[in-house]
Amino acid sequence: MPITITAFAQSPDRGRGLARDMRVRWALEEVGQPYAVRLLSFAEMKQPEHRALHPFGQIPTFEERGLALFESGAIILHIAESHAGLMPANGPARARAISWMFAALNTMEPPIVERSLSWLVERDKPWFAERQAMLDERVRVRLGELAGHMGEASWLDDGFSAGDLLMVTVLRRLDGSGLLDAFPTLTAYVARAEARPAYQRAFADQLAVFARAQAGNPFTPPN
Amino acid sequence: MPITITAFAQSPDRGRGLARDMRVRWALEEVGQPYAVRLLSFAEMKQPEHRALHPFGQIPTFEERGLALFESGAIILHIAESHAGLMPANGPARARAISWMFAALNTMEPPIVERSLSWLVERDKPWFAERQAMLDERVRVRLGELAGHMGEASWLDDGFSAGDLLMVTVLRRLDGSGLLDAFPTLTAYVARAEARPAYQRAFADQLAVFARAQAGNPFTPPN
Repeated sequence: MPITITAFAQSPDRGRGLARDMRVRWALEEVGQPYAVRLLSFAEMKQPEHRALHPFGQIPTFEERGLALFESGAIILHIAESHAGLMPANGPARARAISWMFAALNTMEPPIVERSLSWLVERDKPWFAERQAMLDERVRVRLGELAGHMGEASWLDDGFSAGDLLMVTVLRRLDGSGLLDAFPTLTAYVARAEARPAYQRAFADQLAVFARAQAGNPFTPPN
Repeated sequence: MPITITAFAQSPDRGRGLARDMRVRWALEEVGQPYAVRLLSFAEMKQPEHRALHPFGQIPTFEERGLALFESGAIILHIAESHAGLMPANGPARARAISWMFAALNTMEPPIVERSLSWLVERDKPWFAERQAMLDERVRVRLGELAGHMGEASWLDDGFSAGDLLMVTVLRRLDGSGLLDAFPTLTAYVARAEARPAYQRAFADQLAVFARAQAGNPFTPPN
């Protein structure tokens, strides 16, 4: 039985690779594992069938031979532990890569998601501009700390890891905000990751889903 | 060399066990590992010495025999992998426990922290009440989904795990908000976890740090 993941039938990001299935696609491409995709409408995501897989009714999920996982971070960790290519073999380096995975999802992502969410649900409110400035500053502090850590390095630690994969998908959520522009270290870091063949295959695959949906013909790609 | 963690010299939570060192203390108590604590002022946390351990200048960190970790999630995972007591041995159950760790930190915690942060930095703003209602609703949706998943179960999956440990520390951040009261499943879940001897030892230890600081006598407890 192949790996099956879930993704949006109609991604709200319009194929920009910002939905969280992109992380899982990219990781599977990095380790060279084929997978199938089950596309879900927003209504289907909230049905009991899907909630049995994902209690919070979200995507992505991951199924393989009786194993069913949810949360992109846990799925990436499982893939990185099961196949070579995303995690150093050396104990301390492996533990540091995992520190960066959690840093991406628990330290960097929350203020970045909050900023997008504010734009989504508060942009007609009288307080929007003042709050957006506060949120921008929170994000900027974190970006400065991350750039300070990286210095001249290519990746967060020794060699590309699952920590980089998650961090780059988080930073990409700032596309269009202009916030990354003040940190050339970080724009170069994101570009370096996006140039990886595995990233490009994953990006093309998620974009194809969106393009087919636009053409009124969504279906599960064979991959 | 024993395990050394870092914690606030003067915790902003005033000893209520909401700072993130509580998670690490609790995990170490669950697996029966002694540890030392290095207390840091807010100024010390932002110095280069500490940033070399934690690029974002936060607590907790974890050091043991040349291994240095940051991010409470990564530290808990490392402890759970190194000692029995926080993770099922069975592969699929272990992977599910890790799903719950990420769910606690990446799905449940962000809206809960955002709500506290709003209270902290926006409570004098004219928009505070309207936003707080929005944030309460975001948290309530997640709590309902979590309660729906749990049903009559004692823990998130089979037996107490690192996933429960993180989830309970996240839910405890709602203390005083009244939001948990609508979900008796969840108040019982938190109480069940707080009744664990390991939790109580960890709580007492972090409270003692606060009490000593109040008495003008902070020092690193021997433990």
